[in-house]
Amino acid sequence: MTCIFCQIAVRRLPADILYEDDDLIVFKEVNPEAPIHLLIVSRVHIDTLNSLDEQSVGLMAKMVLVAKRIAEDLKTQSGYRLVINCGREAGQVVLHLHMHFMGGWRKK
Amino acid sequence: MTCIFCQIAVRRLPADILYEDDDLIVFKEVNPEAPIHLLIVSRVHIDTLNSLDEQSVGLMAKMVLVAKRIAEDLKTQSGYRLVINCGREAGQVVLHLHMHFMGGWRKK
Repeated sequence: MTCIFCQIAVRRLPADILYEDDDLIVFKEVNPEAPIHLLIVSRVHIDTLNSLDEQSVGLMAKMVLVAKRIAEDLKTQSGYRLVINCGREAGQVVLHLHMHFMGGWRKK
Repeated sequence: MTCIFCQIAVRRLPADILYEDDDLIVFKEVNPEAPIHLLIVSRVHIDTLNSLDEQSVGLMAKMVLVAKRIAEDLKTQSGYRLVINCGREAGQVVLHLHMHFMGGWRKK
């Protein structure tokens, strides 16, 4: 298991985890580009958006619901951005499906 | 009906439409920030991510599947980015739920 996100999911590598359930794990981005910058990561290893199918795409809906809940919890509903990069060309550094949650600008 | 995206959806306002189905409509962003910059828009008027619920969040999964298909059609699977801004503070200009599809950098 060489994938860094798979290792975080099973706690073999450390991360500042804010939320987890059976499908997803949420932790702080180590190189934040916003006052609040989190990664919403699937537990199952899927490399990119290109590998999603009719079944697994349900994960994306779950990610969005978790993002919405996090925005409420962190009181940043007034402004947050969800970003999914697909492929190195688009800036996907870790080839394990994840959504960036960015917000908190007004708080800064 | 004052929402610009609602008007595009019923063809009362023009747009360069690439795809549509019962739930979604896809057209070119008028102020592109990437060689390929499209908007994937729900037909139903939902203002922001904050208004999604367990039922309507299925739209997000549909948007992702459509994005994946578009990437294939436009041969930009090697790199594309999906962005959803929630609220003015995050850069959401039109308060009607939409996903930005950006890609085509390598083609440029």
